[in-house]
Amino acid sequence: MTEDKLLYTGKAKNVYQADNEDEVLIVYKDQATALNGKKKEHLPGKGVLDCRISQVVFDYLIQNGIKTHLVKNISDHEQLVKKTDVFPLEVVLRNITSGSLVKKFHVEAGQKLAEPIIEFYYKSDALDDPFINESQIHALGIADKKELEYIKEMTLKVNDLLVPFFAQSDFDLVDFKLEFGKYNGEIILVDEFSPDNCRLWDKTSHHSMDKDVFRKHEGDLVETYHEVLQRLTTK
Amino acid sequence: MTEDKLLYTGKAKNVYQADNEDEVLIVYKDQATALNGKKKEHLPGKGVLDCRISQVVFDYLIQNGIKTHLVKNISDHEQLVKKTDVFPLEVVLRNITSGSLVKKFHVEAGQKLAEPIIEFYYKSDALDDPFINESQIHALGIADKKELEYIKEMTLKVNDLLVPFFAQSDFDLVDFKLEFGKYNGEIILVDEFSPDNCRLWDKTSHHSMDKDVFRKHEGDLVETYHEVLQRLTTK
Ligand SMILES: Nc1ncnc2c1ncn2[C@@H]1O[C@H](COP(=O)(O)OP(=O)(O)O)[C@@H](O)[C@H]1O
Ligand SMILES: Nc1ncnc2c1ncn2[C@@H]1O[C@H](COP(=O)(O)OP(=O)(O)O)[C@@H](O)[C@H]1O
Ligand SMILES: [Mg+2]
Ligand SMILES: [Mg+2]
Repeated sequence: MTEDKLLYTGKAKNVYQADNEDEVLIVYKDQATALNGKKKEHLPGKGVLDCRISQVVFDYLIQNGIKTHLVKNISDHEQLVKKTDVFPLEVVLRNITSGSLVKKFHVEAGQKLAEPIIEFYYKSDALDDPFINESQIHALGIADKKELEYIKEMTLKVNDLLVPFFAQSDFDLVDFKLEFGKYNGEIILVDEFSPDNCRLWDKTSHHSMDKDVFRKHEGDLVETYHEVLQRLTTK
Repeated sequence: MTEDKLLYTGKAKNVYQADNEDEVLIVYKDQATALNGKKKEHLPGKGVLDCRISQVVFDYLIQNGIKTHLVKNISDHEQLVKKTDVFPLEVVLRNITSGSLVKKFHVEAGQKLAEPIIEFYYKSDALDDPFINESQIHALGIADKKELEYIKEMTLKVNDLLVPFFAQSDFDLVDFKLEFGKYNGEIILVDEFSPDNCRLWDKTSHHSMDKDVFRKHEGDLVETYHEVLQRLTTK
């Protein structure tokens, strides 16, 4: 891959145009960021772990009928994927109260929700990823009603698959963030699924085994992600 | 009304228990607040104007089939209303971009929306009235799906009635805030409808004739509200 094919450099990955016009190469970086990029650290080994964990999760979802962007694994930190028009939305699903929900509504952390909460954030570094509702999403032309219903439905399906998947490895899937893109008119799951974008709590100790370790200085992030990968691949 | 019957003292009104157990008396104050109460001013004459404007608007809505809390006018600044369990929600409808929508999403102000936007805010001074979505409203037990659908439907109906109503007096109804309560299991419109809770722009000059005059120091608020009442009652 040559430098001039770099399409986008993000907080966790670089995106390159692939030889095939309708594909891109995602290259995972050894970098952790928090507070919308304001906190940043170089962490050798992290990129490989994010890529491999995401690969395991996406493979499982694909086996269970979820359409994703994944074309093939290129190396331990590179994936070839379908090039999509990404909806500029972070789709967050919560099973257990934590994070911004606790901060905003002063609810107790760690409470199992009777039904999952779904939230949308408008992906915009300039605007600081504001919380957005469906009515605003329609009005701003980000996605129409049918698209949003489909995205919510897919998000719930992913959750129904991943809660037991992570439970088998002794994790509570507290919450997670997904992104969706359009490929040939079809909405598919894109981006990644790693402990950077979800909260995983050890079922026994209730310790965080995700990016909160970095956000809250609770230990070695790379070691933690290594254990997540180990647990997911040796059930 | 005796002091010991005071149930609630708000930013714009006091609420007293009425002799009839299932009614309350709303007494409008000569006070304007902004920034969630951080900016506050005593404005003689304002309470009467809020009460009379709200009365005119509610009367029009009632004539057109909207169920409200209104029982009867007691004086020029007091209304007897049904005592309801108020949903702790500010229901905002926008026809034209303005205010927090512009600030949050950097959209251009003054743009007519193809369809109205509806937003909910969780009424809590302690939490600073946070923006909340429907999924969170359900999860926090504030309102169930059926109730929220009904509230949205009623809000759209109110808008369909009030846009032409204000247009007749040469106002653009830019946006407004409603509150709903439950009375004997039925959801009805409560609180008030005054220039404190909506944006009214003069159709010709596009000047604000609402609380933005106070928020932005654009002139005499009481004089402005007086003109609003005049225009609404002399069509
Ligand atoms: N299949 C895809 N097609 C196009 N873009 C994608 C695809 N999958 C992910 N992306 C985008 O590539 C970028 C990945 O880099 P990342 O470091 O996560 O960026 P960011 O800092 O914007 O989150 C994101 O902007 C993501 O939306
Ligand atoms: N019909 C009603 N029954 C019970 N409470 C009501 C009714 N109508 C309005 N209220 C409540 O009375 C209060 C009115 O006072 P206000 O000064 O507007 O308060 P706030 O500062 O909380 O907005 C509000 O809390 C409002 O929700
Ligand atoms: Mg990202
Ligand atoms: Mg009020």
